[in-house]
Amino acid sequence: MAVKIGVLLKDPMKWLLIAALLAILAKIQGWGDYWVFGLSALGLIPLAGLIGEATEALASHTGPRIGGLLNATLGNAAELIITLVAVRAGLLELVKASITGSILGNLLFVMGFSMLVGGLRHGVQKFDRRQASNYAILLLISVVALLIPSLFSHSIGPENSPSVEALSLGVAGIMIILYAAGLIYSLRGARNPVAISGTQMEMVVPHWGVRTAVGVLAVATFGVVILSELLVGVVEHVVASLGVSEFFLGIILIPVIGNVAEHLVAVNVAAQNRMELSLEIAVSSSLQIALFVAPLLVFVSLIMGNPLTLIFNPFELIALTATIFMAALVAMDGESNWLEGAALLAVYLILGLAFFLLPTSG
Amino acid sequence: MAVKIGVLLKDPMKWLLIAALLAILAKIQGWGDYWVFGLSALGLIPLAGLIGEATEALASHTGPRIGGLLNATLGNAAELIITLVAVRAGLLELVKASITGSILGNLLFVMGFSMLVGGLRHGVQKFDRRQASNYAILLLISVVALLIPSLFSHSIGPENSPSVEALSLGVAGIMIILYAAGLIYSLRGARNPVAISGTQMEMVVPHWGVRTAVGVLAVATFGVVILSELLVGVVEHVVASLGVSEFFLGIILIPVIGNVAEHLVAVNVAAQNRMELSLEIAVSSSLQIALFVAPLLVFVSLIMGNPLTLIFNPFELIALTATIFMAALVAMDGESNWLEGAALLAVYLILGLAFFLLPTSG
Amino acid sequence: MAVKIGVLLKDPMKWLLIAALLAILAKIQGWGDYWVFGLSALGLIPLAGLIGEATEALASHTGPRIGGLLNATLGNAAELIITLVAVRAGLLELVKASITGSILGNLLFVMGFSMLVGGLRHGVQKFDRRQASNYAILLLISVVALLIPSLFSHSIGPENSPSVEALSLGVAGIMIILYAAGLIYSLRGARNPVAISGTQMEMVVPHWGVRTAVGVLAVATFGVVILSELLVGVVEHVVASLGVSEFFLGIILIPVIGNVAEHLVAVNVAAQNRMELSLEIAVSSSLQIALFVAPLLVFVSLIMGNPLTLIFNPFELIALTATIFMAALVAMDGESNWLEGAALLAVYLILGLAFFLLPTSG
Repeated sequence: MAVKIGVLLKDPMKWLLIAALLAILAKIQGWGDYWVFGLSALGLIPLAGLIGEATEALASHTGPRIGGLLNATLGNAAELIITLVAVRAGLLELVKASITGSILGNLLFVMGFSMLVGGLRHGVQKFDRRQASNYAILLLISVVALLIPSLFSHSIGPENSPSVEALSLGVAGIMIILYAAGLIYSLRGARNPVAISGTQMEMVVPHWGVRTAVGVLAVATFGVVILSELLVGVVEHVVASLGVSEFFLGIILIPVIGNVAEHLVAVNVAAQNRMELSLEIAVSSSLQIALFVAPLLVFVSLIMGNPLTLIFNPFELIALTATIFMAALVAMDGESNWLEGAALLAVYLILGLAFFLLPTSG
Repeated sequence: MAVKIGVLLKDPMKWLLIAALLAILAKIQGWGDYWVFGLSALGLIPLAGLIGEATEALASHTGPRIGGLLNATLGNAAELIITLVAVRAGLLELVKASITGSILGNLLFVMGFSMLVGGLRHGVQKFDRRQASNYAILLLISVVALLIPSLFSHSIGPENSPSVEALSLGVAGIMIILYAAGLIYSLRGARNPVAISGTQMEMVVPHWGVRTAVGVLAVATFGVVILSELLVGVVEHVVASLGVSEFFLGIILIPVIGNVAEHLVAVNVAAQNRMELSLEIAVSSSLQIALFVAPLLVFVSLIMGNPLTLIFNPFELIALTATIFMAALVAMDGESNWLEGAALLAVYLILGLAFFLLPTSG
Repeated sequence: MAVKIGVLLKDPMKWLLIAALLAILAKIQGWGDYWVFGLSALGLIPLAGLIGEATEALASHTGPRIGGLLNATLGNAAELIITLVAVRAGLLELVKASITGSILGNLLFVMGFSMLVGGLRHGVQKFDRRQASNYAILLLISVVALLIPSLFSHSIGPENSPSVEALSLGVAGIMIILYAAGLIYSLRGARNPVAISGTQMEMVVPHWGVRTAVGVLAVATFGVVILSELLVGVVEHVVASLGVSEFFLGIILIPVIGNVAEHLVAVNVAAQNRMELSLEIAVSSSLQIALFVAPLLVFVSLIMGNPLTLIFNPFELIALTATIFMAALVAMDGESNWLEGAALLAVYLILGLAFFLLPTSG
């Protein structure tokens, strides 16, 4: 019984695609920044979903290995485009926050919600700890590596920026190499922690030919670029008038927009008593952020002339460190129940509250 | 073979109840602060034990579900009363220190001592890691949540107290809800991490009728209130003349007074080669502190006009974080030996030394 | 099939012993500091190896119990001598860095390299998690204890040095007692986490009589003393002219020189698909550093009049904490693959880069 994620999303998606069109209309007709912001945010959700579906459809024609590569590179395409547009606009705080937010969202919100829903339906859910903990350990090591430049920067004080930038670039380079190693690992036939494919997720892959798939991919990508421009163009103004920080928006908004489809799948499979797959999706998605999206942003931002260094603020650091160790232990446990899920959600809620209250630095 | 904890404590308890009476005499006759302090501290031990026994006796009449609720709410009654009296007297450092001290005492001292004693008798002790690690993960998540306001406060600097207080209240609220969720979880029949009952601990429950039990409960509670007043009334003076910090006293004294009976049970069952139950007692007790006692203190202290914010000092934070992750790994391991126990005791000893040497803040 | 480490090292060792002689020649004939430095560093490697072999040969005559004691005390003799000579010369930064470097080197480099090599040859390597995680937990607790003075010092600010020194001494004393407890644990016949013997490592032990063994031990120890003096005598000058920090040299150089032989064994047994033994060697070696070498250095340095306090710099602290928790989780997982190994190596590389870029304090 495959998860009917395509069917599930079909109707809301249609409606949200209308939001995409309305966003453009709102911009042209000058409905005001709030309308542009809200509609483009809503419109990005189905477009991100379409990129995912088109990638899956394409992968179904290429065989599992190339399919894995496609998934690994295009899996976070929507999020990558939005953040790149934000980098060009100089919104570096928002971009870094979205990296943190994606990882926290996957490991606390999605994992917690999955355990809550799954546990309420099925009581204690047992799962093979081997596979999940394998993924979790790789994620743990990757995120620790990702955080080293920040830890370095905070422990030497603020004055040594050339060293910090050198270290940040070095880390980005090593992460990309490790990511490539992960792809090679998967091409040798092992179950792939870096790029979990749609087939593994048992999504209903649309029966598109190669042409249709490439076409949908191109159109959806183009749509994401347009809406990202609209969204980023008004974000500073919206942030200022709402009184929240650019940082808070990055922690919550970008990760949600780019990953709704994936998140729904994770919760759905947990509800079907397949916690193992649910955990793998959450961990694998975090892994792609740490090993691929973050380093890529470092390099591309450097080329763009708005260099992004991998320096997270102290509270992001703490939140990420605690979360990653918790998630690893939860995955290694081999058992979950709804109370554990509720506890993870509680931490996410508390962190969200803290990020909301966090004063804007500078 | 149930643990004969009632019998075990019977004689020393009688003697210590005399201490309770002497404490009142010492106060009235003006024997001096040291006598009042020492005698009321000693006297609180059997009274805390009596509250526990009366709760168990009452629970044996109500059936396991209501019994679980009774245990969950009255399990830390003595400690709660002492800390509330201290809150009213404005000894907030002492109160916060006692929260930290209870958790460290349970996870390092009690767990370490249990493994040392159990391991010396039985060699390597194996236990089902599932249950213990389930509890440990819930505790880990809860304590991390509890520490977020402190981490937030330290990472933004000292000047943002309204945000910090808001966050502290928010956390307290979420913790209480999580605690309620834990109670619901137990009412649905699952083995209960929030309120482990005396039956599970296999204590010898006194054969008291409901009336006797309620009577003993009322008298013991009244006694605890009286002795707490006596103790707290002289604590500042004693602290000053002994040259130790109020903080150090809170870390060591309050947790010991309130939990001696429970600690003895944990060590006893370990000596009977039942490490699993021993771990559960230590973890469950810590969980009640984090999810129930700490948030309740936040709310009640607010009503009392001496608002307690959940801001622990940096060294408390570090000690709690390291301890909680260590304890989780130890519980998830599924095996213990006396060397592991000795190592946990060594950490407790070193932390105790550090807390003793810690300069008084402000 | 025993690991033919003796045979393996025979030829390179001969050549490196020539380096030892050349180092003395370089000193006498005044070839310059770089030659003295490089040749004595190279020469120390086979001498450290010879101390190990002589210890094993001696142990084969004494029976397993005394043999274990010999291994536990002489296992890090070379490293201990080098650091003691450095303490006398006042190079305390270098000495502390070498403690950190030994632990990081064992848990990231050796463990990572073992998993990489073993995984490339044998795919996913499974191992009994019980033994490895037992060792790992003991190591975790020991390293946490070792770090408490630093955490204490950083959280109270720099001004309280008498408290910090008292705590450092207290910790050193407790660690030595815990080490003694570890030896007793092993004498009672249990598999010994403190002193893993050569027989357990299945090294080819040379067939030396007691006399030959004692003779080799004496000569090799004398050689290590001489070369350490040569090395330490020029280290400051070499450091200054190379432009690296004394700290960086300590992190990388001393740990490598003292442990090459052991490291080769760990990688070799991993290549033979015996990850469990490989993990045990890496963890056991780290444990000896934390429980024996570090406290001993504290006491001996105090007697020497150059007191070493156990205060690591913030970045060392962070690196050690993250590493120790990662290593514990990796060991508790019960499974490894080459990607995990590559990830550990990536963290080591990134930390190495960070240590290289770390500005000299003071």
